[in-house]
Amino acid sequence: MDDVYATAHGRRMIEADAASAALGMRVLRAEPGRAVVRMTVSGEMLNGFAVAHGGLVFALADTALALACNETDAVTLVAGADIAFLSPARAGDELEAVAERRTVEGRSGLYDVRVSTADGRVIAEVRGRTRTTGMPRP
Amino acid sequence: MDDVYATAHGRRMIEADAASAALGMRVLRAEPGRAVVRMTVSGEMLNGFAVAHGGLVFALADTALALACNETDAVTLVAGADIAFLSPARAGDELEAVAERRTVEGRSGLYDVRVSTADGRVIAEVRGRTRTTGMPRP
Amino acid sequence: MDDVYATAHGRRMIEADAASAALGMRVLRAEPGRAVVRMTVSGEMLNGFAVAHGGLVFALADTALALACNETDAVTLVAGADIAFLSPARAGDELEAVAERRTVEGRSGLYDVRVSTADGRVIAEVRGRTRTTGMPRP
Amino acid sequence: MDDVYATAHGRRMIEADAASAALGMRVLRAEPGRAVVRMTVSGEMLNGFAVAHGGLVFALADTALALACNETDAVTLVAGADIAFLSPARAGDELEAVAERRTVEGRSGLYDVRVSTADGRVIAEVRGRTRTTGMPRP
Repeated sequence: MDDVYATAHGRRMIEADAASAALGMRVLRAEPGRAVVRMTVSGEMLNGFAVAHGGLVFALADTALALACNETDAVTLVAGADIAFLSPARAGDELEAVAERRTVEGRSGLYDVRVSTADGRVIAEVRGRTRTTGMPRP
Repeated sequence: MDDVYATAHGRRMIEADAASAALGMRVLRAEPGRAVVRMTVSGEMLNGFAVAHGGLVFALADTALALACNETDAVTLVAGADIAFLSPARAGDELEAVAERRTVEGRSGLYDVRVSTADGRVIAEVRGRTRTTGMPRP
Repeated sequence: MDDVYATAHGRRMIEADAASAALGMRVLRAEPGRAVVRMTVSGEMLNGFAVAHGGLVFALADTALALACNETDAVTLVAGADIAFLSPARAGDELEAVAERRTVEGRSGLYDVRVSTADGRVIAEVRGRTRTTGMPRP
Repeated sequence: MDDVYATAHGRRMIEADAASAALGMRVLRAEPGRAVVRMTVSGEMLNGFAVAHGGLVFALADTALALACNETDAVTLVAGADIAFLSPARAGDELEAVAERRTVEGRSGLYDVRVSTADGRVIAEVRGRTRTTGMPRP
């Protein structure tokens, strides 16, 4: 379709995603099986230890995951995910999440997301479990 | 200490937690090994499927987890967590996360968090892995 | 039904389970949503660090999980599981796995299994994810 | 060192691993950050549904993981792992586990293991969490 979105439903998902917009996420690329999304850590994203709140790091990964796993017109949901926090992110860090398909078997899928900083520090690694439904797209 | 915070460091963690405040979280109870935190799903928390963004559900659980696992003066970090999404949350839902210690062995801990709605629907279940450090409290 | 098996299909599952038998597992109790299974660590179960091989600790938990989650006549499969190894088990240790239902939502379930020694040391904690199918029992 | 073991400690780990030997595992390759191990599903490895017991599939992955993550002379332990069961394995299937480093950060590591059949069916995917210790090798 264009340089950012390979599918129309990918673009529509993000246009309707108020949470990702409120967190300032920018989609760099979304195609079936792969997505790249960025977010800058603001002061409002810090937790009580003055590092990025784990939930917001997870949110970035989750948006990339949702884009990567909605490969076809069938709505695919994230059924669960595991996150490992490897290094803290600080205010001003620009985080990039790269989500990639690992394995799809029937309606079940596994996707890996790496969240890292511009200088290559790995902040978190997420493995997402997805489930393709028979629901029509909204 | 008081009806909400059983420890001074628990209170200070939340007072310094800009992210949890920005998401409107309210701590109902925080004691060593257990915490209860609430958050109302706003329109800005919805994703492209018009349900609560998984990252924000995770964020609520993560704040409860951080409060429950910081049992002593030694800073304890969330090293990782697994979340299972069981039911979608919608705008206006008031979510409650209850975090409880499962097992602590040396510096490693496991804590479970259930996120549910006021009417008892389970939205998500999180199992967090924690690591107690030798770092002094900020 | 009797003091060990609350259901006929639970008993049949174990009678047909060659792997659990070969590993010397003994079912102490199996009822819908809960199971207790024991196994003694033999010399043939040790890994290259002279402690119980993680796969065999997992196997004990997995058998307990399968018994607990097959609550009805509908075949329920373990779709996945996370194991945390908390303490090593040694030759001669008698391990007990206690599996309990955490949450069931539609066809998806979460069950927790604790593996511990007779003297109360926690060896591992497992959270299993289950999926109830439409398959008839064999 | 040779065509199978890139390090002496890798070879010694397997030579001392009674459990992997009892399950008939064969190491095809073990080098820092990567290992390939095979195991044939025997009748004694089947569970009550006549498919390979999940614990034994996990055991194969765990041996590959232990070989891949012991990259240096410092003993590295598997602290935990998540397994997703994607397709059942049957008696006679020759399973191959390929373990590969995903990320190492300080003393913590993440390694992915894919277990598949000779004809390319993916049986399971494992993500292992490792911890490098200060313990000397036995």
